[in-house]
Amino acid sequence: MGMKKILVLHGPNLNMLGRREPQVYGTWTLAEIDAALQQRAAELDLRLECRQSNHEGELVDWIQQAEGSVQGLLINPAAFTHYSYALREALAAVKIPAVEVHLSNIFAREPFRRQSVISPVVSGVICGLGLDSYLLGLEALARILERDGEES
Amino acid sequence: MGMKKILVLHGPNLNMLGRREPQVYGTWTLAEIDAALQQRAAELDLRLECRQSNHEGELVDWIQQAEGSVQGLLINPAAFTHYSYALREALAAVKIPAVEVHLSNIFAREPFRRQSVISPVVSGVICGLGLDSYLLGLEALARILERDGEES
Amino acid sequence: MGMKKILVLHGPNLNMLGRREPQVYGTWTLAEIDAALQQRAAELDLRLECRQSNHEGELVDWIQQAEGSVQGLLINPAAFTHYSYALREALAAVKIPAVEVHLSNIFAREPFRRQSVISPVVSGVICGLGLDSYLLGLEALARILERDGEES
Amino acid sequence: MGMKKILVLHGPNLNMLGRREPQVYGTWTLAEIDAALQQRAAELDLRLECRQSNHEGELVDWIQQAEGSVQGLLINPAAFTHYSYALREALAAVKIPAVEVHLSNIFAREPFRRQSVISPVVSGVICGLGLDSYLLGLEALARILERDGEES
Amino acid sequence: MGMKKILVLHGPNLNMLGRREPQVYGTWTLAEIDAALQQRAAELDLRLECRQSNHEGELVDWIQQAEGSVQGLLINPAAFTHYSYALREALAAVKIPAVEVHLSNIFAREPFRRQSVISPVVSGVICGLGLDSYLLGLEALARILERDGEES
Amino acid sequence: MGMKKILVLHGPNLNMLGRREPQVYGTWTLAEIDAALQQRAAELDLRLECRQSNHEGELVDWIQQAEGSVQGLLINPAAFTHYSYALREALAAVKIPAVEVHLSNIFAREPFRRQSVISPVVSGVICGLGLDSYLLGLEALARILERDGEES
Amino acid sequence: MGMKKILVLHGPNLNMLGRREPQVYGTWTLAEIDAALQQRAAELDLRLECRQSNHEGELVDWIQQAEGSVQGLLINPAAFTHYSYALREALAAVKIPAVEVHLSNIFAREPFRRQSVISPVVSGVICGLGLDSYLLGLEALARILERDGEES
Amino acid sequence: MGMKKILVLHGPNLNMLGRREPQVYGTWTLAEIDAALQQRAAELDLRLECRQSNHEGELVDWIQQAEGSVQGLLINPAAFTHYSYALREALAAVKIPAVEVHLSNIFAREPFRRQSVISPVVSGVICGLGLDSYLLGLEALARILERDGEES
Amino acid sequence: MGMKKILVLHGPNLNMLGRREPQVYGTWTLAEIDAALQQRAAELDLRLECRQSNHEGELVDWIQQAEGSVQGLLINPAAFTHYSYALREALAAVKIPAVEVHLSNIFAREPFRRQSVISPVVSGVICGLGLDSYLLGLEALARILERDGEES
Amino acid sequence: MGMKKILVLHGPNLNMLGRREPQVYGTWTLAEIDAALQQRAAELDLRLECRQSNHEGELVDWIQQAEGSVQGLLINPAAFTHYSYALREALAAVKIPAVEVHLSNIFAREPFRRQSVISPVVSGVICGLGLDSYLLGLEALARILERDGEES
Amino acid sequence: MGMKKILVLHGPNLNMLGRREPQVYGTWTLAEIDAALQQRAAELDLRLECRQSNHEGELVDWIQQAEGSVQGLLINPAAFTHYSYALREALAAVKIPAVEVHLSNIFAREPFRRQSVISPVVSGVICGLGLDSYLLGLEALARILERDGEES
Amino acid sequence: MGMKKILVLHGPNLNMLGRREPQVYGTWTLAEIDAALQQRAAELDLRLECRQSNHEGELVDWIQQAEGSVQGLLINPAAFTHYSYALREALAAVKIPAVEVHLSNIFAREPFRRQSVISPVVSGVICGLGLDSYLLGLEALARILERDGEES
Repeated sequence: MGMKKILVLHGPNLNMLGRREPQVYGTWTLAEIDAALQQRAAELDLRLECRQSNHEGELVDWIQQAEGSVQGLLINPAAFTHYSYALREALAAVKIPAVEVHLSNIFAREPFRRQSVISPVVSGVICGLGLDSYLLGLEALARILERDGEES
Repeated sequence: MGMKKILVLHGPNLNMLGRREPQVYGTWTLAEIDAALQQRAAELDLRLECRQSNHEGELVDWIQQAEGSVQGLLINPAAFTHYSYALREALAAVKIPAVEVHLSNIFAREPFRRQSVISPVVSGVICGLGLDSYLLGLEALARILERDGEES
Repeated sequence: MGMKKILVLHGPNLNMLGRREPQVYGTWTLAEIDAALQQRAAELDLRLECRQSNHEGELVDWIQQAEGSVQGLLINPAAFTHYSYALREALAAVKIPAVEVHLSNIFAREPFRRQSVISPVVSGVICGLGLDSYLLGLEALARILERDGEES
Repeated sequence: MGMKKILVLHGPNLNMLGRREPQVYGTWTLAEIDAALQQRAAELDLRLECRQSNHEGELVDWIQQAEGSVQGLLINPAAFTHYSYALREALAAVKIPAVEVHLSNIFAREPFRRQSVISPVVSGVICGLGLDSYLLGLEALARILERDGEES
Repeated sequence: MGMKKILVLHGPNLNMLGRREPQVYGTWTLAEIDAALQQRAAELDLRLECRQSNHEGELVDWIQQAEGSVQGLLINPAAFTHYSYALREALAAVKIPAVEVHLSNIFAREPFRRQSVISPVVSGVICGLGLDSYLLGLEALARILERDGEES
Repeated sequence: MGMKKILVLHGPNLNMLGRREPQVYGTWTLAEIDAALQQRAAELDLRLECRQSNHEGELVDWIQQAEGSVQGLLINPAAFTHYSYALREALAAVKIPAVEVHLSNIFAREPFRRQSVISPVVSGVICGLGLDSYLLGLEALARILERDGEES
Repeated sequence: MGMKKILVLHGPNLNMLGRREPQVYGTWTLAEIDAALQQRAAELDLRLECRQSNHEGELVDWIQQAEGSVQGLLINPAAFTHYSYALREALAAVKIPAVEVHLSNIFAREPFRRQSVISPVVSGVICGLGLDSYLLGLEALARILERDGEES
Repeated sequence: MGMKKILVLHGPNLNMLGRREPQVYGTWTLAEIDAALQQRAAELDLRLECRQSNHEGELVDWIQQAEGSVQGLLINPAAFTHYSYALREALAAVKIPAVEVHLSNIFAREPFRRQSVISPVVSGVICGLGLDSYLLGLEALARILERDGEES
Repeated sequence: MGMKKILVLHGPNLNMLGRREPQVYGTWTLAEIDAALQQRAAELDLRLECRQSNHEGELVDWIQQAEGSVQGLLINPAAFTHYSYALREALAAVKIPAVEVHLSNIFAREPFRRQSVISPVVSGVICGLGLDSYLLGLEALARILERDGEES
Repeated sequence: MGMKKILVLHGPNLNMLGRREPQVYGTWTLAEIDAALQQRAAELDLRLECRQSNHEGELVDWIQQAEGSVQGLLINPAAFTHYSYALREALAAVKIPAVEVHLSNIFAREPFRRQSVISPVVSGVICGLGLDSYLLGLEALARILERDGEES
Repeated sequence: MGMKKILVLHGPNLNMLGRREPQVYGTWTLAEIDAALQQRAAELDLRLECRQSNHEGELVDWIQQAEGSVQGLLINPAAFTHYSYALREALAAVKIPAVEVHLSNIFAREPFRRQSVISPVVSGVICGLGLDSYLLGLEALARILERDGEES
Repeated sequence: MGMKKILVLHGPNLNMLGRREPQVYGTWTLAEIDAALQQRAAELDLRLECRQSNHEGELVDWIQQAEGSVQGLLINPAAFTHYSYALREALAAVKIPAVEVHLSNIFAREPFRRQSVISPVVSGVICGLGLDSYLLGLEALARILERDGEES
């Protein structure tokens, strides 16, 4: 079997990164985050595909289509974190391990950001570490896949 | 006037049926549900069109376009049940009788599933009866249309 | 084995139907509902017994006594819907499939009506369809019994 | 037409009056309250029937049976005040003016006593005035009947 | 000792009675209410003084000044019912028995009206009976004074 | 004076014990529980009367009638635990020491079971110990009576 | 009939404008706001009277007295926005169209500011636009009066 | 520099205006609202582009693309008002002044309508004034742009 | 510059001190409190003016007028503590250091007393120490003024 | 195998018993309670070790160290009942049956006392019976151990 | 009898004062606060002992041991303010007057800081006055002891 | 300057790992976790010290003492996550970057586990990844220190 594939999903408004409230979200652009992830994926012997959408339905479609061809999901649900039960159920419906990441520490911000409807259906959650939230999330997936491989 | 037409709308992730948590949602695929509905519609002398979407906006579009050509709506809002005020207002805006159905008994599950923002604007709600939730919902619409026909 | 038997239970104040807030509950009398149910039961090859009580304890007694002689319960708990944990536990204690029905759409009325303490222990819930809530509830039970029969 | 009739309904545990927490409920026995009410009814040219029950269903039965023969209801729902939606709906279902009374000032006691599920369906509420809550409630009914008489 | 004196206090906007939402508050003007109260007071051998104010502070002043010269307070706090802790404490500070009255049944209206911060410090509450709420409130005070007179 | 008498009251659905969710309530039948209680009562030199009812009003009646002839109450309110203010007030109205027992640990189950409206008016509460909840409750009453006897 | 008259009411502490938290409320003094309103009123062919009070009762009095001589109310309730049910009922009692304005965006500030007890009884609400909140509010009233004029 | 450009965004179901609950939303069609806005924009020397979508993601896309070519946003988020954090963050991410408008007075309707997740990130909010909510919102933007122009 | 001046403001019903619930508020009259404060002010080399009002608006006026002539505010808001946002904003609008005092320990009383809308805008809060709450509040202000003097 | 051992743990401030609010906690000192427990343990053929600590961490240490050498835990968590998740998890982590006891009826006291974070992880709870809460708790453990012995 | 003794208790992290968020807590070190308290105690003829602990149990021990040798407690519970019911009950169990102090105005900070579980059991609370909160708290205790001395 | 040092803090009951609910917490013992961390630290050129305590005060002491000698904190607060404001303030008081880790996905468990009082004061949070939560947390700290080094 060939290299394992990770699908990276960026939620709404993350295409604005770099320009949007940099004191909260840092100065990385989404392209820079994707590049850093690709480099780290290469080191981890993983294939990576990165996508962003402002459309909840598109993210749901992509998650459903991932089944069979993708071995891990790295997702920053952005604003959908707080209300998209459709996203939650898409993640719950496919059998792909997923890690949820956030650039900022969502627990140190406004009250509405402290509730994630996504967290109950993912393997793990990493937040507050900026670009490293993504990179460590990728490593977490690599280890989950490695361990699953060993077990089977 | 010709046969009356019912639009069946399936919300997000229902295209995953059969594979997704079968202990909760049963083993029917969406195609099987649609086939069963078509067969029952034929017996009830109704035309049926079945659609599924993961996109809230698409469901809203379809509901709006139904006005004039569709006489009844059978809708399983799935995850949108719990937060889509846009769907609710689309149903409230058109003058088409609608019945809301759920495969599982949403009242016997997690607390967030117990609130439907859709229910206040439909004629009736049927849940927990698996495929029969849909079939009985279709019959309910047939009777509503029949009665409306008698009244006018 | 002979015909299967369904026990229909009407909760408090349903004996007032026809006179009581007809814009909410319709103009059927309870006798008319029972007659319609009997006719539909005959078509479905089911025996039916219909009872009404304003006494919570009496309804609990009847549910308990049903075990062994009754194969399905069709219940409109009326006002007990919102607080009778005794009724809930009676339904949970017996091994008889039950369907909860309501004439009106309880989700489109006062806030206190939106909570049913009964729903978590029944197979399915049907509401808002007037007399059809009962008739479809009876069909739902017929299909549950049919399927159970096939499985055993 | 003859004298108008008022049905006085005393809820659970009111038959214990006189012995039960007299610092809260006063030292009147229920018999003394009924006697005082009968005397005042005579002055007001009203017929009176007084009943007490610890059974919610019995109170519901009595309210339903009152329709046609009774022109006014004076009710102290006692503990049922706080949860008996069955009683509430019985009062709402009959077309008889009703006044709710309480011996003690329920708003100056434990939090659970501050909510009455009965109040929204009665004409008026009188509380905190001991025996006078009943006597004034009777007068209130007398005036309601008088005014209704004038209007028709 | 001469006739006992009752101070009747009408809260904000009650001077608008007759013109203001008559389907809720009835068609009595405040002058008509005061006249009816004066007439009933004469029958009860009580002196009456009636005042209305839109100023919370003025009502508080009047209550404080009543001590010594007034034997009973009949108060319709109107909008102050729901938030005037100043009024509540004025009533609690003086040693004069008070009865709270409302023209409408505040429990059958908007949720904010169901909370009275005044009720916990008065002897009794009467609501929903229109003009009779006042008249019965006056009688309630008369009986309280009578009983207190007998006891001392 | 002769032997002291304890009234044991079993609430709704407890007559179903043994058959009803044995993983929660154990495999004892109610008859077995009563037999065990009778045996233990004999050892403690107490007379015992055991009753079960699904009717709230009947339990209230029995509590009221106990006054004078019964020295202690052992009560498992079952579903009434969570809403029967009528039962609560009956217990509060009589002057008989009462102990509340539950077979299961109600605090380790669904949220609605964690609230007892009965607990504030009894001497003590014992739960989670199966049949021993009853036996220890009986001993607790024996000691309360013994101590009261010593004090008087 | 002559020029229509608008009464402008400024609530408590608005006389402090210019000095008070200018980063929130801007640097306009109340006199400057009134002057700008007068100029705009002249252009709109309206007469204007501007008043400020720190006294809830005085604002209530003014609203009541406006009936008959004033055709529109422009009100910034300031701190009374959040609790003055007396002001709310005064506005509800008179038959004069009213527009509520706020200098700052009250929805972007502390939680307690997000609730207005006044908004449910006015025609419209304008906030967050500084001096323009007032000027646009005046125009809104002008158009309401114009339209009412056309209709009658 | 040429004329400034305003982007007008209409949320879900606003394309149904005129037909949908006219007693709440008035009888204007969306085309009529856009025409009125275009005419007023011409008077204010502003270019206007009007768009409507039932798709949250499309609205987010449009807001993001507006940066650089649009100087002001006039938005009626309709049903998205109450839950679209994606829309909120899009508005917060671009540096374009925005005004939120609603045809009806959302504070005088159902409780869920009283919470706007959009309001905290816009400059101002105007509601309840029908077509004038839009026209005044446009003027508000014109003045904000004018003032910003003066300051720079 | 001459002696610094402190304005002491007593809220509603504090003129009743001595007579009003002495077990809660102590036996000091307001005159005695003012005298004790004047004596202590003399020792601290401060001028003092003491005022009481039952009128929220009057207290707001006094606070506004204090600006320029008063260097410190000692305020017991009494009942206004719990709801007077007008008082809160008056204190926030002037630049005078303020200390809030209460005779009783408001945290050991009824729940509604535990919330102070005033506390967030004052320098410090002292409660529960009877007359000493005032005297220590005066000393606190003296030290604040002293320190401010040193800093400038 | 030798005698079974029970560890009795008393939470914070229980070493003050006898002196501390005797109307709530009784007049037993902790030494007297331990002596009574030792005597009863001897009758039940159990070894007993009794410890008290005001230190949450020390109680957690003791529970952890009990594993292997102790067969049952009798614990009065005192104030830790309401917030010590550390204690809760220690009890959940060891495999020793535990019974929670309270001297007073915690359900008849302040609201904060009604929540036990410990109850969901113990076998049973006994409260309100003073010294007997402990003695019956010891018997409950004896029976649990006896039954476990029989089963293995 | 000799000099009275006050025990000063500083809760967790107060040993970090001076370095920790000086804009909130000021620049005093704990040693400086203790020195200032010792100096003021000398003037007030009081003996003082100052202790700090990060251990809840240690603070509880110290409070218990104070009984008999200490006449007053000055306590800054710091973070324990918000959850330590153990500390609360220790203070309630001993018969020593206590004053609670806070350097910052806890009511002007995050919501969780506004709840003190300690306040209901102390004599008085002083907050927001920095070092003066302690010094005035000491004076408050001095006066309480003085007055108690006079009374006995 | 030599190698940077990380202090690893394990909260209460984590010394039980391996034995305690392995389906939730995995089968690693604490010693195995510490060994894995030491190995990873060596690779990252970091010195590591690992400590566990069941005592909240001890953890607070250790955090305070870390200032000056430790460059990063890796903390699993375990049960203290949900209530230890003392721990939170210790972390907030020292100037050392901290990462919070949890073995299990606390958002997919009981409701009380979803609230962390610690999260608002740490740099980042990682949960649900078992041993990897710790290892990735260590890497996160390594990168934070690296970046801080580059910046200075």
